[in-house]
Amino acid sequence: MSLKVGVVGGGQLARMMIAPAVELGIEIEVLAEQESMSASLAATQVGDYHDAEVVLSFARDVDVITFDHEHVPQDVLSALVDAGVAVHPGPAALGIAQDKLVMRARLAELGMPQPDWAAVSGTSELQEFLDAHGGRAVVKTPRGGYDGKGVRVISAATEAEDWFAALAEDARGGALLVEELVDFSRELAQQVARRPSGEIAVYPVVETVQREGVCAEVIAPAPHASDRLSSVAGEIGRAIAEGLGVTGMLAVELFETTDERLLINELAMRPHNSGHWSQDGAVTGQFEQHLRAVLDLPLGDTSARAGWSMMVNILGGPRRDSLESRFAAVMTEHPAAKIHTYGKEPRPGRKVGHVTVSGDDLDDVAYQARAAASHFED
Amino acid sequence: MSLKVGVVGGGQLARMMIAPAVELGIEIEVLAEQESMSASLAATQVGDYHDAEVVLSFARDVDVITFDHEHVPQDVLSALVDAGVAVHPGPAALGIAQDKLVMRARLAELGMPQPDWAAVSGTSELQEFLDAHGGRAVVKTPRGGYDGKGVRVISAATEAEDWFAALAEDARGGALLVEELVDFSRELAQQVARRPSGEIAVYPVVETVQREGVCAEVIAPAPHASDRLSSVAGEIGRAIAEGLGVTGMLAVELFETTDERLLINELAMRPHNSGHWSQDGAVTGQFEQHLRAVLDLPLGDTSARAGWSMMVNILGGPRRDSLESRFAAVMTEHPAAKIHTYGKEPRPGRKVGHVTVSGDDLDDVAYQARAAASHFED
Repeated sequence: MSLKVGVVGGGQLARMMIAPAVELGIEIEVLAEQESMSASLAATQVGDYHDAEVVLSFARDVDVITFDHEHVPQDVLSALVDAGVAVHPGPAALGIAQDKLVMRARLAELGMPQPDWAAVSGTSELQEFLDAHGGRAVVKTPRGGYDGKGVRVISAATEAEDWFAALAEDARGGALLVEELVDFSRELAQQVARRPSGEIAVYPVVETVQREGVCAEVIAPAPHASDRLSSVAGEIGRAIAEGLGVTGMLAVELFETTDERLLINELAMRPHNSGHWSQDGAVTGQFEQHLRAVLDLPLGDTSARAGWSMMVNILGGPRRDSLESRFAAVMTEHPAAKIHTYGKEPRPGRKVGHVTVSGDDLDDVAYQARAAASHFED
Repeated sequence: MSLKVGVVGGGQLARMMIAPAVELGIEIEVLAEQESMSASLAATQVGDYHDAEVVLSFARDVDVITFDHEHVPQDVLSALVDAGVAVHPGPAALGIAQDKLVMRARLAELGMPQPDWAAVSGTSELQEFLDAHGGRAVVKTPRGGYDGKGVRVISAATEAEDWFAALAEDARGGALLVEELVDFSRELAQQVARRPSGEIAVYPVVETVQREGVCAEVIAPAPHASDRLSSVAGEIGRAIAEGLGVTGMLAVELFETTDERLLINELAMRPHNSGHWSQDGAVTGQFEQHLRAVLDLPLGDTSARAGWSMMVNILGGPRRDSLESRFAAVMTEHPAAKIHTYGKEPRPGRKVGHVTVSGDDLDDVAYQARAAASHFED
């Protein structure tokens, strides 16, 4: 009689759903891509999520299917829905997350604030956009990019020639996305959760710091955020979750411009790195909230549990020893740090864990979190 | 290369070690007594912990063996130690927890404050103790009791005749424990953690409320506790952990008398119900702390994360439906409640979960926690 969630994908996001599932008393099963993944503890099956038969058989005895990532193909999602499986987020919402051109078009329909953008199918169209936007722009492949992959800042259309060539060979064809280069003062992220029955819970807006296209740090709440800014960010999150019919967690990555406008950068329809602070820093962490949302259970309190929380990612460095071998040093010096590691082999640049620290003095919180994380990166 | 903890016993205490193990990135394996127990998710083996061969084979590839309960027989513990397995808490400390007469004698050697007590091997000795202590006393079987089992308040020695008869047939023979009935104003509990290398971490002393011999509620920290009281409680915990060589979590159940003395009631050498508040209410919860302690890792910050936390146990009631079927009502009315259920069939009087609430207003915290828990008990 207990509730059972099936998670497609065995990465760290699936792993981080295990703890709140165990605490609440929800059963969790994972369809992992291979053995020995981050979420192996809950893996009941290893198989290819591109194969509808595999996913259907995995889904047979769960109450809802949700995801570690947004890459499950539409035909597999449709097969699940056709078989009567509850799927959250659903195929329509995921379809928007899977294609950045579709996302821009849908956000435009919703009247959401965005950078100028265009779909360009060749170098001349791209050059036109560049010429109209000061000679520099961001070009993105609509599909398959993450953590800065599939994103280039260019100043000449020829710099995207290889991507146009690849598109020409892609059966789905299509175009590249080009966006104006936004003069932002900083980046923010807004987490919201939405249940199928409509309830929405909004988290405090946070500041994110990226390095080389990868999230490095998150400060919650965003320092110096005016009430107006926080409220606008929350309204954007709410409007997107409703407008796109998102179920589960939604992360909206935002640019804040020097004139305090907010422009939407990216969307993620799942728990997201910019929300990891909430595991320790909010009454209801994003992984618990995601489980509640996809099961259509009432959502938890999103309040911060301390004045400030800071999350710092741990990236693999040149050292090849395990992260656990460094626990003693971190724990001795930073007894208040909450350490999260993902059971992944540390490889240079790979996200293998994170640290959060909460407290009332932001300087101290930031110092502790960075110092704790740095022990893992020598 | 990752750290691996093996837990003997598949109950809810083992279950609640899973979440912090997953978060830290520690591997956890459980030797469960049977299929479908609370900690099944991490169960790698089902077997009888009374069988040294079974436990030795389970222990083969872990870094340390620890326990869901204190009932593993001494010969099995010795076999582990002889095989070079790290066992925490160790056989000597567990031996004290396994026999209340041994515990009383060792606490007396340490000069710890206790109720008057005696070992009595027959009704005449027991009657003598009763006569010397106002005609009423508490009699306990030294082994095997928990949650009020094996404990009787008596006013005549004949009320323990059946236990004496049972002792006479027990190969280990021995005596019953009799203790003065303490005129306490309330019950407290002190959690401490100790690493094999000696470091000790002391939690805030808490108030516990028992109903029919079973822990019903815990308030952290204990209301109206003077600095002196808190500090004495902490010193008692520290002295016992050191004096008895406890490794891992230790819970000391205490009586506070009307004249503000503290007398030791019971000990538990493991995470304990009176410490569940710390999962949500302390920077480092007792289950994370236990893992750190038994792995001889530096201990985490034991500070409270809010002014007040309250834990209310969920006991099975007459209803036979699952706890999850009541999630919607609890979550709707109490979005700030942290719900923990143990994956156990609700049977009347059985501990099947708990709820914690944290905040700055004790009245509100207590109201929310009790109201949330009560939804599970109709």
